Amino acid sequence: MGADNHNNTFSDLVSQRYSCREYLPTSVDREVMAQVLETARLAPSACNRQPWRFVVVDEPELLAAVKRCYDRAWLESAPAVIVACGVHDEAWHRADGKDHTDVDLSIAIEHICLAATSMGLGTCWICNFEVAQLAEALNIPAGIEPIAIIPIGYPASSQVPEKKRKNMEEVVQWGRFQ
Amino acid sequence: MGADNHNNTFSDLVSQRYSCREYLPTSVDREVMAQVLETARLAPSACNRQPWRFVVVDEPELLAAVKRCYDRAWLESAPAVIVACGVHDEAWHRADGKDHTDVDLSIAIEHICLAATSMGLGTCWICNFEVAQLAEALNIPAGIEPIAIIPIGYPASSQVPEKKRKNMEEVVQWGRFQ
Repeated sequence: MGADNHNNTFSDLVSQRYSCREYLPTSVDREVMAQVLETARLAPSACNRQPWRFVVVDEPELLAAVKRCYDRAWLESAPAVIVACGVHDEAWHRADGKDHTDVDLSIAIEHICLAATSMGLGTCWICNFEVAQLAEALNIPAGIEPIAIIPIGYPASSQVPEKKRKNMEEVVQWGRFQ
Repeated sequence: MGADNHNNTFSDLVSQRYSCREYLPTSVDREVMAQVLETARLAPSACNRQPWRFVVVDEPELLAAVKRCYDRAWLESAPAVIVACGVHDEAWHRADGKDHTDVDLSIAIEHICLAATSMGLGTCWICNFEVAQLAEALNIPAGIEPIAIIPIGYPASSQVPEKKRKNMEEVVQWGRFQ
């Protein structure tokens, strides 16, 4: 059971992933992109509904239109983005009505970010975009929601910034709430 | 840039992860559990809010109470569970009101599942539990929502079931919706 080597690799991967905000102009081969997306395709989802559509945008004109939906200068350098969309009608809804689209999409998107990191690529979760503008740019049908824009490309720097996080004691507890 | 080895490892990890529904009685050392949880602590979240609390339940009486919140015989074999809870007031809300608690929690929970897999442990995403009953069992304060119960333990079988997924063409598109 002691797959320590494996574990170190995944822990390392988690430590190496960061929000990359400056990319080299180098384009990302579509074959590489497909390898990254394959890990999202294999992600788990509630009742295995897989309520996702991944829209790859690497064509300059469309890419520019998507970038205008998130007004930050740093995004300019990204050679491509993946827009991860959730299909609400396909997603599992719990008996109390809770829609699990966000849950399923987030699992799959993080697979993309971790896979990209493992291949020397940078990514960044972007959720603070103009939803209606993005829906129009990509012609997203009603009932399908863009959940995140994920820029993807080779990082301009090899420096991984230090992670600022809460202490373990603040986020983990052994047993019920007191 | 060609970190192919690394990539194979993450792709393998994604392939090896599955919904494990039968565990050995072997307990999971709390030190091992802490290593798994460390990868969740380091997960990204919207505006780095980290709106999560991970409740580890491995004490027999409390574990039995949690298991009663999800009425499936297979869960009986799990030696421990992690209940991942989201703190809505701590989470980032977008200007249009969208609450990102589910997004952030799902990222961190999947880190747990992948880290566990990398250490030879099995897990399973459970979202179809009795919410009110679980909140009572764990004394979860108002405003904190249990998002998933994650059983964790050593799998009874070394067989990884085949994954049934949609084809790549069904879930990935290159360019805008037609």
